[in-house]
Amino acid sequence: MAVIGLDDVRDSAARLDGIAHRTPVLRSRSLNELAGAEVYLKAEVFQRGGAFKFRGAYNRISRLSTEERRRGVAAYSSGNHAQAVALAAGLVGTSAVIVMPKDSPPEKVAATRGYGAEVVTYDRYRQDREEIGRRLAEERGWTLVPPYDDPVVMAGQGTAALELIEEVSDLHALVAPISGGGLIAGSATAAKGLRPEIRVIGVEPAAGDDTRRSLQASRRVRIEVPRTIADGLQAAIPGELTFEVNRRLVDDVVTVTDEEIVEAMRVLFERLKVVVEPSGAVGVAALLARRIPTPGRRVGVILSGGNVGARRFAELVGGRSA
Amino acid sequence: MAVIGLDDVRDSAARLDGIAHRTPVLRSRSLNELAGAEVYLKAEVFQRGGAFKFRGAYNRISRLSTEERRRGVAAYSSGNHAQAVALAAGLVGTSAVIVMPKDSPPEKVAATRGYGAEVVTYDRYRQDREEIGRRLAEERGWTLVPPYDDPVVMAGQGTAALELIEEVSDLHALVAPISGGGLIAGSATAAKGLRPEIRVIGVEPAAGDDTRRSLQASRRVRIEVPRTIADGLQAAIPGELTFEVNRRLVDDVVTVTDEEIVEAMRVLFERLKVVVEPSGAVGVAALLARRIPTPGRRVGVILSGGNVGARRFAELVGGRSA
Repeated sequence: MAVIGLDDVRDSAARLDGIAHRTPVLRSRSLNELAGAEVYLKAEVFQRGGAFKFRGAYNRISRLSTEERRRGVAAYSSGNHAQAVALAAGLVGTSAVIVMPKDSPPEKVAATRGYGAEVVTYDRYRQDREEIGRRLAEERGWTLVPPYDDPVVMAGQGTAALELIEEVSDLHALVAPISGGGLIAGSATAAKGLRPEIRVIGVEPAAGDDTRRSLQASRRVRIEVPRTIADGLQAAIPGELTFEVNRRLVDDVVTVTDEEIVEAMRVLFERLKVVVEPSGAVGVAALLARRIPTPGRRVGVILSGGNVGARRFAELVGGRSA
Repeated sequence: MAVIGLDDVRDSAARLDGIAHRTPVLRSRSLNELAGAEVYLKAEVFQRGGAFKFRGAYNRISRLSTEERRRGVAAYSSGNHAQAVALAAGLVGTSAVIVMPKDSPPEKVAATRGYGAEVVTYDRYRQDREEIGRRLAEERGWTLVPPYDDPVVMAGQGTAALELIEEVSDLHALVAPISGGGLIAGSATAAKGLRPEIRVIGVEPAAGDDTRRSLQASRRVRIEVPRTIADGLQAAIPGELTFEVNRRLVDDVVTVTDEEIVEAMRVLFERLKVVVEPSGAVGVAALLARRIPTPGRRVGVILSGGNVGARRFAELVGGRSA
């Protein structure tokens, strides 16, 4: 049974039209040389809220009933989903409470509050955010907006890949980061629906390869909460629904080290003039590290987000420039 | 006597069509709030070579005769003009020698060599780059491509403003950095030609306000070579031809401190996700510092370049993030 189909992604694109940004596709001769491929970067860093997450969140929240909107929405998130839910809730005219890890980047917490949401924090390594989120939602009677394990959220995330392939129709491969698996589930649904021969490749941090392991084991494998600079990719286990999609549509999953992620951020900064957060840079990191075999091929890569503070960027990248 | 007119800028735009990038115009709600104006950023950071300079250089070099092309071109530049001439020379199929200050950002020297040009260095505080450049050009019989004091170069630079006003026709003001004055001379020619009521405002580093002083004195005033982080804005005296244009078309010149420039770079990084070098950020710095009175008005700003290394950015901006 297919959890979502191309029509769901198309329907989501229509709903997002004029509300989400149609983000640009960036190219760079020097990146192509470094990567040994023709690279098309879907720059979701320029999406509202600074990441692709707005697509899924708005897609879900805009479908609430009048009664549900009168109450509010709840979400748990390491950052970008939080901002997306807060922003979408504001646009739709409903309240939002967000459960965020205590050690989230402070600019993400500030941005979430800036969009008008209430923030509740928890300890990422000791407490279960899903349980806290569910309890809050239940107590208040608010609707929980899951970060990935929801067909409507997944279909919304897939609109980024839909736009990319509408613009560049002859891609050989599509590369996307994997955390809970919502972005790549939506992306793979759009990509394989439009172009069955395309290869869909996921990228995880080396310390957080739960989806890679799960695909190898043909069942969802839980790992320790990964410690990586890619703060948006710290899922410990794939989602149930996302795994259902990804086991059928994702051709391969590769991993990158934190050092490779930093190098990709530096290249994107210096050559493309674009700010990409660690989680958003894993696709380019995999290409630069030649983790994906793509000699001379056209590869689409989703730069999933750009929410990294200047100080944090300086800590990560300072001292490594040529 | 007008040095250049709107038709020269239009003619240059036709020549650059399909060769220079038509760079995007960026907007940001949070920047608008911080600036207290409706801001339209012409993002020349995405131009070929990473700065607007390619427009003028290609405009000039592509008009060389066959005999001139057989020989080569020479240029003196603190960085971006160097890369632009090197890149344009390569595209046109001619040789280039570039005179660069010894203390130029190393990534700019590397990029210039990377485009295939020969680099000759000099001491910015002790030697006269114009003389070195002229002597080199004379000895070899190569054509000197001036960084700003040339009608064809000026007209080429004006195409950035032409594109911006074609896209946003109802701007109240246009803001551009001033070094030798070529960008703002071309920009003012395009802007006032298309929209006579627009205000054209130049921005200089506080330490390098030669054009502001010259306009006040109604003659070209020479200052000490300015020491500022804006390494592209270190002209000590306005150009002759550029001053002829700017004394008639520039309405006001304001200045910004190095600290204000760094704050603008941080805001552009965190809110817009775009990398802007110090010289390119002075327009936004002037808006954020409320140096330009623009309550609720539509203001076009040229982000003139993005050539800053990640390590240099980290030095400048690290530790200042919220």
